[in-house]
Amino acid sequence: MPGVDQLNRLLDAAQGPLHPAARDTLIAALDAGWADPRRLYAQARRARALLDQSREIIAAGLGVRPAELSFHSSGPAALEAGLTGLLHGRRRRGTALVASAVEHSVVLTLGRARAAGAATGQPGSGPLIEVPVDHHGQVDLQDWAAAVAAEDTAAAALQHANAEVGTLQPLEQAYALAREAGVPLLTDAQASLGRIDPPSTADVIVGSAASFGGPPAVGLLVVREGTRFALPGRVREAEHGRAETDPWVPLVLAAAEAWRQVEATREAEEREAYALIDALRIRLSRIEGLEVVGHPTDRLPHVLTASALYVDGETVVHELSRDGFLVASGSACTSSTLEPSHVLAAMGALSHGNIRITLPLAALSPGRAQDCAELPAVLEDVLRRARAVIHTTGSGATEVGQDTPEGSPMEDDSAPDEDAAGAAQPRTVSEDLSREQQAVLDSRGTLCPQPIIDLARWWHAHPDADSVTLLADDEAARVDVPAWCRMTGRVLRTVTERSDGGTAYDVGSS
Amino acid sequence: MPGVDQLNRLLDAAQGPLHPAARDTLIAALDAGWADPRRLYAQARRARALLDQSREIIAAGLGVRPAELSFHSSGPAALEAGLTGLLHGRRRRGTALVASAVEHSVVLTLGRARAAGAATGQPGSGPLIEVPVDHHGQVDLQDWAAAVAAEDTAAAALQHANAEVGTLQPLEQAYALAREAGVPLLTDAQASLGRIDPPSTADVIVGSAASFGGPPAVGLLVVREGTRFALPGRVREAEHGRAETDPWVPLVLAAAEAWRQVEATREAEEREAYALIDALRIRLSRIEGLEVVGHPTDRLPHVLTASALYVDGETVVHELSRDGFLVASGSACTSSTLEPSHVLAAMGALSHGNIRITLPLAALSPGRAQDCAELPAVLEDVLRRARAVIHTTGSGATEVGQDTPEGSPMEDDSAPDEDAAGAAQPRTVSEDLSREQQAVLDSRGTLCPQPIIDLARWWHAHPDADSVTLLADDEAARVDVPAWCRMTGRVLRTVTERSDGGTAYDVGSS
Repeated sequence: MPGVDQLNRLLDAAQGPLHPAARDTLIAALDAGWADPRRLYAQARRARALLDQSREIIAAGLGVRPAELSFHSSGPAALEAGLTGLLHGRRRRGTALVASAVEHSVVLTLGRARAAGAATGQPGSGPLIEVPVDHHGQVDLQDWAAAVAAEDTAAAALQHANAEVGTLQPLEQAYALAREAGVPLLTDAQASLGRIDPPSTADVIVGSAASFGGPPAVGLLVVREGTRFALPGRVREAEHGRAETDPWVPLVLAAAEAWRQVEATREAEEREAYALIDALRIRLSRIEGLEVVGHPTDRLPHVLTASALYVDGETVVHELSRDGFLVASGSACTSSTLEPSHVLAAMGALSHGNIRITLPLAALSPGRAQDCAELPAVLEDVLRRARAVIHTTGSGATEVGQDTPEGSPMEDDSAPDEDAAGAAQPRTVSEDLSREQQAVLDSRGTLCPQPIIDLARWWHAHPDADSVTLLADDEAARVDVPAWCRMTGRVLRTVTERSDGGTAYDVGSS
Repeated sequence: MPGVDQLNRLLDAAQGPLHPAARDTLIAALDAGWADPRRLYAQARRARALLDQSREIIAAGLGVRPAELSFHSSGPAALEAGLTGLLHGRRRRGTALVASAVEHSVVLTLGRARAAGAATGQPGSGPLIEVPVDHHGQVDLQDWAAAVAAEDTAAAALQHANAEVGTLQPLEQAYALAREAGVPLLTDAQASLGRIDPPSTADVIVGSAASFGGPPAVGLLVVREGTRFALPGRVREAEHGRAETDPWVPLVLAAAEAWRQVEATREAEEREAYALIDALRIRLSRIEGLEVVGHPTDRLPHVLTASALYVDGETVVHELSRDGFLVASGSACTSSTLEPSHVLAAMGALSHGNIRITLPLAALSPGRAQDCAELPAVLEDVLRRARAVIHTTGSGATEVGQDTPEGSPMEDDSAPDEDAAGAAQPRTVSEDLSREQQAVLDSRGTLCPQPIIDLARWWHAHPDADSVTLLADDEAARVDVPAWCRMTGRVLRTVTERSDGGTAYDVGSS
């Protein structure tokens, strides 16, 4: 297994290396399956046969017919085609799209673009009904029932499991409610395929070969027979009329081989991964200032996400990488848009200091149990070091009307660090204090996790205070201030948008 | 080079095996470039660096900046994104799309869907102005000038070279005319990249790694700086906002390696391929009833297409495959839609009995010169055998008012075959003859090349006749009857749609 050993501590298999058997198949298929399956000569007929065979293998595994399964260039491409075809096919029945607030960004951005178009009466547009989730990330079934039953609802989207936090959705109940309302359901199974039993409760299913050790350049779309489905515009010649081009056969063959492999070992894999993540959840929960998010039991076996107070995700990921641990993050500072994960935001989970673990298959990482065993101590050390750095580089906030206290928010017995405090330049604050003696912390201009650090330091210095107002303009604070209050037992009394910029968070002791 | 030797007579490199160096790179990249380039750990940063490096290599080769080049999941996907972004970016300036009649099917089907939407006033819709081509497949520059100068024209599409017949377009003049009219030009270079100098005369360029020995799952899109370009709907996060997902890095690395290889050998490759195809054109032209189509000199070095009278393309491709020759075809009977190639139709070329050769790179097929040398004799033999089969399985036509003559249309000295004639059942013809003594051949219900065979047989039996009316309902006859008349010196006097089904072709001796 070349390449795999170098990874030793791979804990991000959302897009990992290929399953070794899939890798071998891909290489063999470069010679045996290179031809365009539409040609008529022997090599092309062979490529066609191999494509058909791959379709049969995966369709059988999903419990669907080969004619229901099409291959696309990625999971998101399959998701876009599936959602578009479902909405267009139902355009005479309704225009609204129902989706949970934690769906894949393709669902939500496509839904929002349709909603924006609806304002100008554009054909093909319609409202997006976002159904909220609880703090574990599970959809609210009462809200779901109302949304799917709405007069104008054309289609609904609910994922099988969330890729970021692993939470499973109550799919059977949600599907029953959608069926009752006569609304077809699309289920995004990109995070779950090959790891748990495939969803049977959906009219359209979307997957990615990446979740089972196949190439991420293979997306899967199942449209169950009897589902009204039509892509708008021109006729597409490939993949049951759902794609512009035939897939490149070597990639599909590798995907089918990966599927065969995970299918053969799934039960043991699921049990083992579930236990490893369970143990890791318990150990990580014991680390101070670290919150494990996502449903503790209704979850994917192999996914774990946790957020750490007072550190930024980028630092944590980098530091873990130096110790050979490969993890992902949903923190704003780790995304190209500098926005925190919409999943963490919808769940009200702390978005800074976030790390995400997607356990690789045992075949890809034979040492994964040891990696899981070693991670907590290494992470604890990384967090300690990261907080120490933040501690010594000073606070970003200016306090009005009181001395600026200093000290690591995590070290209750540490003395204020006057040198570090000297590095922070006081700034002018425009005051609009409504109550006498109300302390105001100005963290505007700083990025997560600085506002939270400022808040924690202030409370550390004023353990008996009644309240403080935090001013912040980092978008992540909208998620992180409420999450911090919840985690530390404080109360977020009011959130006020200020005319001079930023948001005021009024945080009380209880 | 495993796999390559088995091919020995590969003459269809439109989608061939990977260039051996690209194959090696892909395999190495499965280990070195598997990671999601958006992650922050070392392996992901390496994947990002490899992706950037690949972009630099190909961009430099195309003479553009890396920021202008994006990777897509296939050539057609890049073409769709390029065309959509160009039209949407220009929506305030116009709605019409100008395109040659021989553009890729994505351009024409997308253009026709927009035109259909225009009838109902749908936003984003607009007319399609198809510019005709001459019998070599080159666009008419006068028509082109008028089309791009039209008030409502938003964008124009003209390919670099045609993938089916190899004809180069007069791109410099067409671009000058478009610039003069202030209309941006998209050039589809999917057939040409890596084989001749890349086009410099375009605002948007589309390519596929398949044309230079890379994976067909890598499409290229260049949007030159200053071009107004905007994809409609939601924001896309990858590839300069032009794609939903990042490419899978191993595929892009393989594409870049293939590019490096073809760039290093291009001059010699181009010269050698041009000479081989030139010699083949001459030899194939000498085969009776075989017409080489496409421009004889303004052409891709490595593409050749020819159509043979009285045989169907499927038979020819199958028979050549039995002799180890791998060729493609644009005949109706070889397509999934049972429609002849729109390129051959637009050129007025015979669409049945069509074969298409795309010479592989020397690195992929060291024996290609010998294959080219051996093909003519083998093809001649295949055609002879195929015509003999058609000859002995009888005519599909019923003649009205005269004895049904039989005989192989290609063998002027052959005697009519009465046994074969006996196999064809006469059918009733509803007559609406306008002239006394006008012979009518009813080939309705038969598919190409049967109507043409019927026509040829009739003339063979009636060498001194003035005219005959052929009834046919195969769509391919619309292309093939005029082409046959041109090839045999007859005149197509009138084409009439009949109320009782089918089309009447009135063919005269001169």
